[in-house]
Formats: sequence, C-alpha cells, structure tokens
Amino acid sequence: MSQKTATAIAHPNIAFIKYWGNRHQALRIPANGSISMNLGALFTRTQVTFDESLAADQLSINEAPATGAAHHRVSDFLAWVRHISAIEEFARVESENNFPMGTGIASSASAFAALSLAASRAAGLGLDEKDLSRLARRGSGSACRSVPGGFAEWQVGTGDDNSYAYSIAAPEHWDLIDCVAIVDQDHKTTTSIEGHAIADTSPLQAMRIEQVPSYLARCREAILQRDFEAFAQITEHDCLIMHAVMMTSSPSLIYWLPPTLAIIRAVRDWRKSGIPACYTIDAGPNVHVISEESYLNKVKSLLEDIPGVHQVMISGPGGAAHLTD
Amino acid sequence: MSQKTATAIAHPNIAFIKYWGNRHQALRIPANGSISMNLGALFTRTQVTFDESLAADQLSINEAPATGAAHHRVSDFLAWVRHISAIEEFARVESENNFPMGTGIASSASAFAALSLAASRAAGLGLDEKDLSRLARRGSGSACRSVPGGFAEWQVGTGDDNSYAYSIAAPEHWDLIDCVAIVDQDHKTTTSIEGHAIADTSPLQAMRIEQVPSYLARCREAILQRDFEAFAQITEHDCLIMHAVMMTSSPSLIYWLPPTLAIIRAVRDWRKSGIPACYTIDAGPNVHVISEESYLNKVKSLLEDIPGVHQVMISGPGGAAHLTD
Repeated sequence: MSQKTATAIAHPNIAFIKYWGNRHQALRIPANGSISMNLGALFTRTQVTFDESLAADQLSINEAPATGAAHHRVSDFLAWVRHISAIEEFARVESENNFPMGTGIASSASAFAALSLAASRAAGLGLDEKDLSRLARRGSGSACRSVPGGFAEWQVGTGDDNSYAYSIAAPEHWDLIDCVAIVDQDHKTTTSIEGHAIADTSPLQAMRIEQVPSYLARCREAILQRDFEAFAQITEHDCLIMHAVMMTSSPSLIYWLPPTLAIIRAVRDWRKSGIPACYTIDAGPNVHVISEESYLNKVKSLLEDIPGVHQVMISGPGGAAHLTD
Repeated sequence: MSQKTATAIAHPNIAFIKYWGNRHQALRIPANGSISMNLGALFTRTQVTFDESLAADQLSINEAPATGAAHHRVSDFLAWVRHISAIEEFARVESENNFPMGTGIASSASAFAALSLAASRAAGLGLDEKDLSRLARRGSGSACRSVPGGFAEWQVGTGDDNSYAYSIAAPEHWDLIDCVAIVDQDHKTTTSIEGHAIADTSPLQAMRIEQVPSYLARCREAILQRDFEAFAQITEHDCLIMHAVMMTSSPSLIYWLPPTLAIIRAVRDWRKSGIPACYTIDAGPNVHVISEESYLNKVKSLLEDIPGVHQVMISGPGGAAHLTD
C-alpha cells in the first residue's frame, strides 16, 4: 500500500488586528498585516490520501461529499501542492470540524491550515513552519495564522515569499478566552472573499492601511505585556475601523444585527465596571468577547442574558497545526 | 413702550450630507459643507424683547425658565447681537417648540435660527438672508441651514464672512417626507458640541473631509433632478461615513442602539422591493427615514411594526425662518 497519506489538526483563529483587503487577490497577499489567537477548543481534522486509483480529487466535509465551490477551491489548492511536489495522483480529502458551520468562526482558516499540513506531508514535502504558513495562505488568507501556535502575527510581506505568519507568544503566555456570542446561524450574504475584493471601494480603506502598522505594534506590545486595557482599546478600535470600511464600501456591507450592537454596548459597560472584556467582530454578526479565564463564567452568563444571543462558545488559546497518528 | 421686540419661527432641518467637525470651533466654521431639508411640520417660535428694566438676559423654553448651560449659550449669543447692533439692553427670550425634546431632532438648529431672526430684528438690524445665516451659525452650526427655505446647502467657506447656507431648491420642489423613527427618548450621553470637538481624533476624518465635496455635488444634483435612487445612495453613504468617523474617534462614539440597526437593515430591504426609502442618522440613535409623500402611510406603518420603534414623527419640506405678527 501507498504511504501517501497524512492527517493533521489545526485550530481556527480570531484576529485582533484584522485582515481586510488584498494587495494581490489570487495569491492572497494582504493589504495589511494582522494579529490573531488560535482557538484551542475548536479544530478541523483533515486526512489527505493521494491515490492513483482516483480520477479526480474527492472531498468530504463532516462525512458528507462536497461538490461545487468548496470542492473547486480544495482541488485548485491540491493542484498547487502537486505542482510543488513530485506527486501526480488525485487525492481523497476527509475533513471534519468539531464546531458547527455558520457560527461566524471561519472554518476556512483551520481547514486550509490542516489541509496544508496533511497534503504537503502526504505529498512527501517536509515544509517548515514558514513555508507551511505561506502554503496555507494560498488556500485562505487567514489560514496562514492557524499554522503557528498561540498568538500569531501575519507579516504583510511584499509577495508570496515573505507573506506568512509566525508565533509572537505561546498559548500559555496569556490565559485569554474568546466567548463567541452566536446571534445568527444563517450563512453570510457576502462572503469574505467577495468582501476583500471590494475593500478598496471604501474611501476609508487607504487611511486604514496607513494606520495598521501602528495598530500592530500596539496590539503586539499589549499581548507581550499582558496589558488587557491597552489590548482592549486597540482591538476594539481596529474592529470598528474594519467595519467602517465595510459599511462604506460599494456595495455597503453591514454585517451587524441588532443583538451585535447590544453586545458591543454591554461589553463597553462591563469594562467600565472593571470586568476585563472587549469585543471583536469578523465579517458576520456574531461577537467575539475576549476576556481572561478567571472571568469566564461571569462573562458567559452576562452574554447569555442578552436578548438575541442564541449560544456562547468558549475557547482559550490553541497550539500550532500538527500531524496526528 | 419700546418697539424692541420681535417674534420669529424657524424649522429644524435634517442633513443629507452631514456636518461633523469644525475648522474653527468658536465661530463654528465647519470642516466640510453640508446639505439639508427643513422640516415644515416642526418649528420653534421665539420672541425676543430687549428691555431696559432687565438686569440680565432671561430665557424661557416651553414656558419654563432656563438656566445653566442653555441660558449661558443664549446669553453669549445675545451679547454678540448687542455687539453688532446699537442696542445695550438685556433681553427676555421666550422660546417654544412644537416637537418634544429628546427626539433626536436637533432643536438647537430651529432655536438659533428663530433667535437670530427675532433678536436681530428686535435689535433694529435688517439682516439679509446671508447675514442672518452667518449669525445663526454662531449660535449652532446647523442653525445656519434653518434660515433659508426648503433644501439648503451650507457652503463651508473660509471664515465667518463666507460660511453660510442658501437655498438650492424651494420646499415645493420635491415632496420628500422625513419619517423620524424614535427609538430612544433619553438625552444623548455625548453632545454634538463635544462630538464635533473630537472629530479629528478619528483617523478617518481627514479622508471624509476630502470626499465631501464630491458627495455634495452628487446630493445636490440628485435633489435638483429629483432622482431618488441617486439621492438615497449618497445620503446613506454619507451617514455611514460620518458614523464611521464617530465610532473610530477617541473616545469611540457609538450612537446606534439595536433598533437603529434593525431600521437600517429594514430600509435597505424596502428599497430593494421598490419602495423609495433611505435612512440617515444624526448624532443619536433615532433614524430619519426619507421617502416620498405618496409612500407616507406605507413607510410609517412599516416603521411602526419594527420592535423598539416608540413613535414615528412625519414632516415634509419647510420654508425659511420668518417673522410673525
């Protein structure tokens, strides 16, 4: 039997300084750098087997065969893996998430990080973390941040060679928790891919891009110092500035729902009352409330009391993408 | 008896291209030009009487004596009127609004437009519309737009001499209606005056100021052509860009409440379904839904069905500030 198989696990991540807009769309060279934390409680596990008996790539997600856009995207990605390796066979890809779809937690990041590791190993490539991150980036921009462990920074770079993510602190460095308040389980009307493509139509995007290097420095420093208040301020500001760009792009992207705003306002009050909590929101209506582990029960129960919050998912920092036996 | 008395009426206005930020704070020279419509159904009526028997200016609002900040602001304004006229007496000012306070409709615009006309006339000044608008601007920036009738444009100007508003279309030009959805009756936590003062702390304000001249041209043209779709697009975009600046200033000003967002989203859907409706929001949570008169009942009843909407106030275009007998 062929040994051309490997299984890998990777975690999704939540960005504190956001990725929005590309300098190069197809290669996913971002318009700006970003910083995130892997979510240890959540993961995608992906097995890739290159098999000469296959006439095409096969993909299953959560044990259901995937076709259409998802299959196309994975198959394009595998074509690149074949291009950079000695392999020619098609692959069978079996991927599963331990978290529900449509929760506003981007499964594409953990999916392409796990796929990058499993596919490259199954193809016989021994990529180091940097090259693995570069590879994952081609599948889904934010996936490059799910390759290294803990707190990661994606350096914007100038092209494919130097646009990748690396760890700035291990998962154990700071016991932050992400309490994801799910206010809507529908699929997004505008995907992130489409959103990135129109970021430049906002008159505010250029100004945002100019600002981000200073945001990265402030966020990085706050994480390294475990300074929650400084962390909270820059994280919320960066979130608002990204949504400002989204709202003022053409067409206008308003991802927030009424409960999104209720949570934003509540979190602001909680922090004033002394609870370490801040919010960040991706391209969707659900709110990631970041706090410290000792406040987990408090924050979770406060969130559950807000009308419109269906569910609260909890995760602390997670490790790097890794192979399983 | 002295003839040093006059009574004037002025309407509040709703801006389609917003005023946010000052180039000169005390003179209220704005950072950018703006366009608005007077609201004919709402008004402030103000009587000013200069009286040599008074030892200080006296102010009543809706028949209640006013002291503190409101009194101080009016008295400062009257000091300027005395400065530019031959008058030396203190004044008795009786002002009343036919619309409730705290509805998100700025009473300061109609109040200072009416006060400017009544006080200048009572002081023996015969100001033309331009000079009246300049005078009103000193009391409250947006008041300069309540001096001319119908649809008004406030040209940014370079200083006190040429920063004033003039009519770009009469009230009869277009039968727009403003359906003001009241979602909160509390007083604002951050006043517009304070907000204007921190506009420059947003990294987005400079970019907004650069854009506004093109927004003014698009909005003016849409009004002149009665092109609702073009009008709706630029009005909503300008509203979002102002709130983007507010949200990203230091401190972050988030005026929206959950029902604010519910209305924004609903209006977007209504317009897709063919109803001429668009939203604009001032420095508060209430939403002004602009439509055409033939859709008044439809839009009002749709708004009343949205949870969190307490009341809907309706107004068509209004005329210029004018004296009463």
